[in-house]
Amino acid sequence: MVKVIFLGFGNLNFHLAQALHTSGKVSVLQIYNRSPVELPQELANIPFTSILSHVVDADIYIVGIPDDAIADFSALLPFKNKLVVHTSGAVSMNKLNIKNRRGVFYPLQSFSKAKNVLFSKIPILVEAEIESDLEILKHLGETISSDISEISSEKRMKLHIAAVFVNNFTNYLYQIGSDILKKEDLPFDLLKPLIQETVEKLDHLSPLEAQTGPAKRRDLKSIQKHLDLLDSGIEKEIYDLMSKALIQKYHE
Amino acid sequence: MVKVIFLGFGNLNFHLAQALHTSGKVSVLQIYNRSPVELPQELANIPFTSILSHVVDADIYIVGIPDDAIADFSALLPFKNKLVVHTSGAVSMNKLNIKNRRGVFYPLQSFSKAKNVLFSKIPILVEAEIESDLEILKHLGETISSDISEISSEKRMKLHIAAVFVNNFTNYLYQIGSDILKKEDLPFDLLKPLIQETVEKLDHLSPLEAQTGPAKRRDLKSIQKHLDLLDSGIEKEIYDLMSKALIQKYHE
Repeated sequence: MVKVIFLGFGNLNFHLAQALHTSGKVSVLQIYNRSPVELPQELANIPFTSILSHVVDADIYIVGIPDDAIADFSALLPFKNKLVVHTSGAVSMNKLNIKNRRGVFYPLQSFSKAKNVLFSKIPILVEAEIESDLEILKHLGETISSDISEISSEKRMKLHIAAVFVNNFTNYLYQIGSDILKKEDLPFDLLKPLIQETVEKLDHLSPLEAQTGPAKRRDLKSIQKHLDLLDSGIEKEIYDLMSKALIQKYHE
Repeated sequence: MVKVIFLGFGNLNFHLAQALHTSGKVSVLQIYNRSPVELPQELANIPFTSILSHVVDADIYIVGIPDDAIADFSALLPFKNKLVVHTSGAVSMNKLNIKNRRGVFYPLQSFSKAKNVLFSKIPILVEAEIESDLEILKHLGETISSDISEISSEKRMKLHIAAVFVNNFTNYLYQIGSDILKKEDLPFDLLKPLIQETVEKLDHLSPLEAQTGPAKRRDLKSIQKHLDLLDSGIEKEIYDLMSKALIQKYHE
């Protein structure tokens, strides 16, 4: 069984460690984190350390720490020529220190401690400097997901930007919707079937085909009416810019 | 059984007629549309006319035509003192001609002919000038949905703006994501689990709590890196504005 050690225990490694461990196909040898953490029930019997020099020998070291800290942290690792991967969408593989064999193991999903995630359908994007390490990472991915692909650091960064649009910015639009309803004493739940339908349409239509609304129709009267009803501020700016973008896309 | 006639046969009336007819609890007497339409199988035995003076007597007339046309069309109706409702989120009830009893029957959902919609969980927002008509509309809604509420024209319009944000603009963000991936020869399917998760989080967290990403963390370095990687144009403007909005929300 492939032997894995987690270095850092943020949201992603928290979920990844559980998924790999409970797959029964991977041996999670140890969890390192700079500060002590409370391990979830499923991982309670896995040795924990917060002393880097106590990290033992393994086949793969999975670094899950803030993007900015990856380069420096990887230089501090007290071993060399081992397979060390990070899990970030936004960091080039080459930021990892060259003393170890480098790779990336990037599950394309948004993780929060409060919510369990099923890995089986999460795309996992892998990268490695040498072919044999790429195979090791693919096999590791296949223990928990059916969607593993190889991707370069450049493409992964573009993918990560796309993820910011469809995840972070979409959630912010939900916030705006929620705020508008709150002001009217209406429950956010009213919007949930519409939000769900917006996603379900993607099973049948491309987003280009699925588009509807005043801006798609170039219905300037409705757009102006909406702008008049919105309080001045950033929500109004977003309404204006998004409408312009849609008109540009469909009518210019 | 309540007798209903559809005036106009756009996407919404297309789906609404099918739902009401197949409920078995409503009698759909007739469908009017200015130009001939092809009725779906389930409605094939319902009389169709494109001559307004041939429209027969019913309990409720459901107007489903473009927003701009509702006022003029309702003035042309060859009858008076009947319950006439429109189905628009964005049009005040009072735009309907006063010669009939006025109301609104607004299912809060996005309809496209290509995709069936289950009405059972769609919120239906109703409004009427007189209490007895409100009851008629509530009963009509209850034949197909479990979520019926009364709402004023003013609040309905705000709700409609919120719907534009969470449906139209969200779908436009999906387009941006899709476009970014297309340029990299990556399939849009890669983003779908993330898009689905973004919605599922709303079952457990408010959008305010569910927010993640560089702008939420005020990670200016990542934001700048993303902006540098985006081609100049409206996508870049949207990235910039949304990031500013999020930083403002969480850090100011």
